[in-house]
Amino acid sequence: MQVELENIQPILWEGDQLELLDQRLLPAETKYIQLNTVESVADAITDMVVRGAPAIGITAAYGVVIAARHRYVESTSEWKNTIQKDLDVLLASRPTAINLFWAIDKMRHLIDDIESDPVTILLDEAMQIHQHDIDANKTMGELGAAFIDAGSGVLTHCNAGALATGGYGTALGVIRSAWQMNKLNKVFADETRPWLQGARLTAWELLHDDIPVTLVAEGAVSALMSSGQVQWFVVGSDRIAANGDVANKIGTLAGAIQAKHYGVKVMVVAPTSTIDMAVADGAAIPIEHRGADELLALSGQSVAAKGSEAWNPVFDVTPASLIDVIVTEKGVIEAPNSLKIAELMQS
Amino acid sequence: MQVELENIQPILWEGDQLELLDQRLLPAETKYIQLNTVESVADAITDMVVRGAPAIGITAAYGVVIAARHRYVESTSEWKNTIQKDLDVLLASRPTAINLFWAIDKMRHLIDDIESDPVTILLDEAMQIHQHDIDANKTMGELGAAFIDAGSGVLTHCNAGALATGGYGTALGVIRSAWQMNKLNKVFADETRPWLQGARLTAWELLHDDIPVTLVAEGAVSALMSSGQVQWFVVGSDRIAANGDVANKIGTLAGAIQAKHYGVKVMVVAPTSTIDMAVADGAAIPIEHRGADELLALSGQSVAAKGSEAWNPVFDVTPASLIDVIVTEKGVIEAPNSLKIAELMQS
Repeated sequence: MQVELENIQPILWEGDQLELLDQRLLPAETKYIQLNTVESVADAITDMVVRGAPAIGITAAYGVVIAARHRYVESTSEWKNTIQKDLDVLLASRPTAINLFWAIDKMRHLIDDIESDPVTILLDEAMQIHQHDIDANKTMGELGAAFIDAGSGVLTHCNAGALATGGYGTALGVIRSAWQMNKLNKVFADETRPWLQGARLTAWELLHDDIPVTLVAEGAVSALMSSGQVQWFVVGSDRIAANGDVANKIGTLAGAIQAKHYGVKVMVVAPTSTIDMAVADGAAIPIEHRGADELLALSGQSVAAKGSEAWNPVFDVTPASLIDVIVTEKGVIEAPNSLKIAELMQS
Repeated sequence: MQVELENIQPILWEGDQLELLDQRLLPAETKYIQLNTVESVADAITDMVVRGAPAIGITAAYGVVIAARHRYVESTSEWKNTIQKDLDVLLASRPTAINLFWAIDKMRHLIDDIESDPVTILLDEAMQIHQHDIDANKTMGELGAAFIDAGSGVLTHCNAGALATGGYGTALGVIRSAWQMNKLNKVFADETRPWLQGARLTAWELLHDDIPVTLVAEGAVSALMSSGQVQWFVVGSDRIAANGDVANKIGTLAGAIQAKHYGVKVMVVAPTSTIDMAVADGAAIPIEHRGADELLALSGQSVAAKGSEAWNPVFDVTPASLIDVIVTEKGVIEAPNSLKIAELMQS
């Protein structure tokens, strides 16, 4: 099959190899790196060449294709055993986004049934995961935009856009759709320290699509919300627990608490592959901590006083009680709870 | 007189000239700049060579001394008229911190009564303002520390330290005192975008005094507060309205809303020169907006996508209802309101 790619293409399968847009270099540089080994794919996920829960899942699926190609050449009889180590390497690349585990699980089940050369079959599955993600984003874009009244202002956090998915985006998919429907007065993005996904990636993406964007410091979110310029806080998710608690980029919880304080509505946009029915609530979601350097330095320049320590969790959990609506490709859930999530997942 | 200087000296009067520690270069470089004209003093305030409400007030007082010296040499009969223009230049240097207006007002009243060479008299007054500020900080340090239970964790925002005052600090004065009393388990500072006062200045100051400090992104404040590591959110102020509403560095309001959500107590530490009885509530406090570049670039390096706009208010107003205690050198006010503030100011 052929994936019908969107305008912004974070993930490409070209000439039998995986190409990733190096998001560490954006917005200064638009450069793809080529990956041919499972270790390089895992490193690219760990080092955030690619990031965003759905994009990590898709990348890992292509990583399984690369692994299968090597292992099948090594031994046509043993590859189903030897590839398990590769799957473990991919599984260990980042802890919080469930889409990684979901995609590898899908590939693993398929591997069990393969009787011949696995590459074509697995590549087709990876491409389907990729295509379904883009299609899901378009569906969610429309479902989410329907909640937004004309003349609204929106604030988004981190990057839940084309760059974080197969293309089009989850939170930014909703913003793209609402913008096309002329519903949006103004789009705000917060910077999202420490990695500056908002300033670097979300602003780049929106401007790429000619959607004007205004950046704010995360400290200015309360002032912004109290000024009445924003009606919706729209974000993606890395993992949603069975009760509707949402793990997402650090600072999402802060935004949701402030939104509740000011009567701004909170919308979480994520495909059902992000919902983890195996974790009862947010407390059970593993939260990744990254190195102190992300806070102590910026673009290789030391910014903080030498000798400072840093506490750098890169995700937080927003309780379901602070969320007005979860938008998935299967439908929307207002005032999420365990019952509504279970019903959606069984539909 | 001679000001009894603290360890960290943001403002010096040396050899008949004003010297300011250039806070734009910290923590990489410790460099003083010499100022001999009123325009250079006003520019130093505008460009944030010196910042922090009390430090701005002290600097402006020394600026008046410099202005008087020039104007008195120009004309011993006309100097009281011609200096008015200089006072206006100083008054226009930054809009939010009331201590600027308070200090210039004090100097202006003194000028009215001077019959001879004004320099010695005005310099003595500027030094008294400087010394009183240091003394006030020490008093507030003790008064504030009394509220903090042993074994507590504290979080501070921006820099309300020695660098923001004549020396010792307001919020950091309390933290210094509590640390000396062995009450603090852990001191956290948030980065404070866009100017990174937390990462650059507060961390530098605390480490200078051998107080370990852990930096967090502002987005991590909710995660930090929900983790139980912090019992107090301790900040300074640029202007306090007659009803107890507090203007302070952008992000203070966000911290206070999150603190309320998690039962963390909020302490504002500021000398009574910060209280503006002429503004009934926070809505009347002028909020400075600074250039977009503070968000779009860092240390001269462009970080945000080209074409991004930015909304950059650098102060916000925390309503009195979110504040547990205001600490001044005249005493403390719990659950601040107009009546309690008026009583304190008349005491």
